[in-house]
Amino acid sequence: MNVHIITIGDEILIGQITDTNSVWMAQQLNLHGARIQGMSSISDGMEDIVGTLERATKQADIVLLTGGLGPTKDDITKKAIAKFYETGFVFSQETYDRILHFFERLGRTTTEAHREQCFMPQNANLLTNKVGTAPGMWFDENGTVVVSMPGVPYEMKYLMEHEVLPRLVERFPVQPIAHRTIQTIGEGESRIAKRIATFENNLPENIKLAYLPSLGKVRLRLSGMGTNQEALEQQLDDLVAEVVPQISELVFGYERDNIEGVVGQLLKERGLTLATAESCTGGFVAHKITSISGSSAYFKGSIVAYDNSVKEGLLGVQAATLAEYGAVSEACVREMAIGVRKQLKTDIGLSISGIAGPTGGTPDKPVGTIWIAVSNGEQTVTRKLQLGKKRLLNIEYTSNQVLNMVRQLVLGVV
Amino acid sequence: MNVHIITIGDEILIGQITDTNSVWMAQQLNLHGARIQGMSSISDGMEDIVGTLERATKQADIVLLTGGLGPTKDDITKKAIAKFYETGFVFSQETYDRILHFFERLGRTTTEAHREQCFMPQNANLLTNKVGTAPGMWFDENGTVVVSMPGVPYEMKYLMEHEVLPRLVERFPVQPIAHRTIQTIGEGESRIAKRIATFENNLPENIKLAYLPSLGKVRLRLSGMGTNQEALEQQLDDLVAEVVPQISELVFGYERDNIEGVVGQLLKERGLTLATAESCTGGFVAHKITSISGSSAYFKGSIVAYDNSVKEGLLGVQAATLAEYGAVSEACVREMAIGVRKQLKTDIGLSISGIAGPTGGTPDKPVGTIWIAVSNGEQTVTRKLQLGKKRLLNIEYTSNQVLNMVRQLVLGVV
Repeated sequence: MNVHIITIGDEILIGQITDTNSVWMAQQLNLHGARIQGMSSISDGMEDIVGTLERATKQADIVLLTGGLGPTKDDITKKAIAKFYETGFVFSQETYDRILHFFERLGRTTTEAHREQCFMPQNANLLTNKVGTAPGMWFDENGTVVVSMPGVPYEMKYLMEHEVLPRLVERFPVQPIAHRTIQTIGEGESRIAKRIATFENNLPENIKLAYLPSLGKVRLRLSGMGTNQEALEQQLDDLVAEVVPQISELVFGYERDNIEGVVGQLLKERGLTLATAESCTGGFVAHKITSISGSSAYFKGSIVAYDNSVKEGLLGVQAATLAEYGAVSEACVREMAIGVRKQLKTDIGLSISGIAGPTGGTPDKPVGTIWIAVSNGEQTVTRKLQLGKKRLLNIEYTSNQVLNMVRQLVLGVV
Repeated sequence: MNVHIITIGDEILIGQITDTNSVWMAQQLNLHGARIQGMSSISDGMEDIVGTLERATKQADIVLLTGGLGPTKDDITKKAIAKFYETGFVFSQETYDRILHFFERLGRTTTEAHREQCFMPQNANLLTNKVGTAPGMWFDENGTVVVSMPGVPYEMKYLMEHEVLPRLVERFPVQPIAHRTIQTIGEGESRIAKRIATFENNLPENIKLAYLPSLGKVRLRLSGMGTNQEALEQQLDDLVAEVVPQISELVFGYERDNIEGVVGQLLKERGLTLATAESCTGGFVAHKITSISGSSAYFKGSIVAYDNSVKEGLLGVQAATLAEYGAVSEACVREMAIGVRKQLKTDIGLSISGIAGPTGGTPDKPVGTIWIAVSNGEQTVTRKLQLGKKRLLNIEYTSNQVLNMVRQLVLGVV
């Protein structure tokens, strides 16, 4: 399954939008065993589209196009495809009925342009688009599949998931393929690799292990090819069950889990509440927690104590602590975590104080020195991070680490 | 100036990273009067690179390549270019000295691979890369310019800004071109267009106006082509001076300004301090404010009062207010803004309370109902937003609006 992805439209060529469609399609196709041979972004000019189609269909088994299916004049993908196949148009009453119904539901009326949208190349198999007006089109000529989809990301994704990927898998049967992702936090990829070296060296030939690091998190992805889907899934499950105990305190989730969601779920299950006391992260940890819908069930709030007077006044940090150790110190984050827990009357308090950068460091506390703490009243755990000079990266990295400490505290694996 | 952009490397084809280089390059090139004819992402295979170069140099005046210049085996861009030009290699002592110096400064040693990196195609003009090891390469044969740069974004950007763009402008003299961006917040693009319709209709033919909306902000970009650069710059300055007074209360900045930076600068200049009281934004406004390095000069902190007990306990919201009007009400945000100002002893307090979604609405307070307020002690201003159902978009949109209200309050244009 060799695939070429073509993105049509001037928005990308003038740098107005970033092409996130192609990367998403590439990910999905890779997971289904396809190889992306190339990607092209082109203008919505007739020659460009036809020329690129001619070249791409020679190099790839599958050509996926997005964009240029709207009702306006500059949307000429359909005409270009018809020209490429030297075919005419036929009116699709089914599509027209669907568009009429779609607009009726929105309480809006259609225009003549929408009727025009319903003329389709004669050799097109229409793919029903339940989230927009323009249907997808599937062509299968001379051994090559060409698929045209709208450029609107959620319409493209809908069509890929419900229509295109299932058909491709049927049309180009590949070896059964499967994946497992293990989400970890707390150690870098080289240290993890060292810990599971034996496991990795003994992996069967049909299984590959990839390390995907980002901001203090490392995803481990096991990808396998087999002859029998069920056996392959079982093989992967067995491997996951084998490796996870070797790094169990690092593993916070699987597949698309994120740390703020996992921690939230854990707090909810245990009926625990959380508050944050933030200095250098400036509210970012609270933002991540509350980016989860339903977080009000366990999150009561945060005191962003950017100024030392707030650390003293609302969090109860001792003036003597600040004078002796400074705000960026173990003693300070300890008092902050304990203080916010009391002040907001929660089961758990977390705290952060550091120098996010890019400036503000001193010889003994360079930029990137960040202390974090979590407390449940009985136990208060602290940790020092020594990061780089990039402010936003430091903030995100720290947020991941401190949320993981909450998880470890709740689970008793701190 | 017709440009083709080629991105080399498997990271993009397997969907591991999003290609943000191409969009940035496209933006810069467009601003310099170039037209992007197409973009290609290809693997680091010899045939792919040579074939794409052959095609692109036929279609474009300028071909820009990124990626594949590193010291590892799969980085074969240089070899492919040499094959394309049918030329040999020559050792660049200058480059080698620079790499040695670069590593010395980092306290690291070079490997044989770094020496290999210094063999360059004979017809390459080297572009000095002061932020990495691999230099850029400039080729100019048969009327077409080919430029190869590293794929690391900050290295590519350094080379584009300091070496490539200045040379392109000299090599392909275009009509003088210039731009001005006006940053607005508070009204949508169609309302702004209505207000400045006369201005827009009377624009000289050499000037174009574009509206670039995002999350409640609208950038107005005036682009002009002229015969004399100085006269064109003056013409644009005059047009900006003409249009800004027509929408003055909406204009918060120019060019790359952002609202959190502009508000911060304003507070710093006036010696004012700020605190935030956040419910549904969950700390995001505090995060935006503190994303600016140096914000501790004017930002004292935030109380994220996700739970009503925190609104009462720390912000002094009356139990009667919550009982009678609920947390999502004008009365509540008014008391929150006044309360946080007192509690954190700042000149200005801002507050937000609403239903960020996607669930949690009621018939009279549907999802997206969000109240915001700002107070300076003498004056408290409130506003109601009625947004959609997308949680993160609502949070970002609200953040922009409430920061703009702080600006308006300080300037007395509320």
